[in-house]
Amino acid sequence: MPSERPPLDALTALPTPRVWSMLVTIFGDLARNPEDRIEGPTLTRLTEGMGLKPEAVRVALHRLRNDDWIASVKSGRTASHGLTPHGRRESLSASRIIYARQEELPVGWQLALLESSDADQKPSLQAEGFVQLLPRVFVGNGQARVPQGVAVFMGDTPPNWLSAQIVPADVTAEYETLLTALRQTSARVADLQPGQLRPLDVALTRCLIVHHWRRLVLRHPYLPPALTGAAWPGHLCRAEVTHLLARFQRPALHEIQGT
Amino acid sequence: MPSERPPLDALTALPTPRVWSMLVTIFGDLARNPEDRIEGPTLTRLTEGMGLKPEAVRVALHRLRNDDWIASVKSGRTASHGLTPHGRRESLSASRIIYARQEELPVGWQLALLESSDADQKPSLQAEGFVQLLPRVFVGNGQARVPQGVAVFMGDTPPNWLSAQIVPADVTAEYETLLTALRQTSARVADLQPGQLRPLDVALTRCLIVHHWRRLVLRHPYLPPALTGAAWPGHLCRAEVTHLLARFQRPALHEIQGT
Repeated sequence: MPSERPPLDALTALPTPRVWSMLVTIFGDLARNPEDRIEGPTLTRLTEGMGLKPEAVRVALHRLRNDDWIASVKSGRTASHGLTPHGRRESLSASRIIYARQEELPVGWQLALLESSDADQKPSLQAEGFVQLLPRVFVGNGQARVPQGVAVFMGDTPPNWLSAQIVPADVTAEYETLLTALRQTSARVADLQPGQLRPLDVALTRCLIVHHWRRLVLRHPYLPPALTGAAWPGHLCRAEVTHLLARFQRPALHEIQGT
Repeated sequence: MPSERPPLDALTALPTPRVWSMLVTIFGDLARNPEDRIEGPTLTRLTEGMGLKPEAVRVALHRLRNDDWIASVKSGRTASHGLTPHGRRESLSASRIIYARQEELPVGWQLALLESSDADQKPSLQAEGFVQLLPRVFVGNGQARVPQGVAVFMGDTPPNWLSAQIVPADVTAEYETLLTALRQTSARVADLQPGQLRPLDVALTRCLIVHHWRRLVLRHPYLPPALTGAAWPGHLCRAEVTHLLARFQRPALHEIQGT
């Protein structure tokens, strides 16, 4: 009979998530299929397990309905909630970045040089994940598409100063904090057998991991290890996330409803 | 009996050279060996053939002696002049750029990115013939040496705007003017047989060609056709200079003295 509680203190000690953002994570991770709905009581148990207040969850659900992200229906006295088509598209698009294993991501890097500092191609470069280094110089992963008229150069081994200039120090520091929490979590669950946890606790653990990772990984474009160095905390976080999500396999919704 | 005069009007129509600079060309082209001396009367005939005034030549010789570039000795009533060891070193160093055929020059190009706009490596890059494009970005030929700590990228096909940004328009315009004069000269001498000209006139023609070419080619670093385009007038000038100097082979000093 599963009865252990997951050791989540390292993850719950991280900055308290914004409630609406945490709900985006929960639905994006657990209820991404068109027919998936999470019942009110299940959502309450998940959010309470993360220390979120019921009133804050109600407000956040209201906001997400207004944003056409979540739709709620009532069946008798029980509400159930699911992603709208819009929310599902956004979730699927983000999931390609959030859940990618390092080996699925582009390798190598490139430098792009613009004709002028107000060149037309700037938005396209940024949309392709290029990071601005100088008014006319961007860097990005080696498979990013470069618009016409931009001079492009494949990167070799970069000097150390380059990664420090393209990754803001505060972003690196946030990844370091997350890395510590992920490693502590990994160490504490090392001896747990999958069956020892209730599906709801597995879901809770996954959502906390994905949430804190998602916040960071969607904020800054992906820069490959060739550019940042393989020991950059962002890459090490991705390895830990991949490892932990494989241990805490996503439960089916019916396993966590009404438990 | 050689009797033709070389058709030099296209070359003498170019901006009048500075006299001291013209003397540097004459000695650098005709009298580069340690034992080479040009006798006063020969120098007079060469400079008069270029339209230079005897008084201006005397002043320029005085200046070049003060600069430890030329040494003069008197034997009876005749002075003779030659490069000093210093003048010879400088001439030899410049000659590697002036007389190089296109196929002897580096191919390909590279971009160098500095850590900061006041990086220590800036003078080294400039000494290696890199041209500054932005405060932290230089371009140069593909074989130029790049100092430690500089990020370097091999160039591929560059966009058109790049060559316009690295070669000042006035430099290109000057090459265009020279190219016209060189091509007119080539056309006029097309039917001349080498033996039809006196050695002194061959020397005169060479020196005018080398002089106007030298002024330009030493002023701006060498940028390969991969970067500027093969049709850039600087490269076309080099081809014409190579062709003309092969037609007007350097005479031995003894052939032009006292003729």
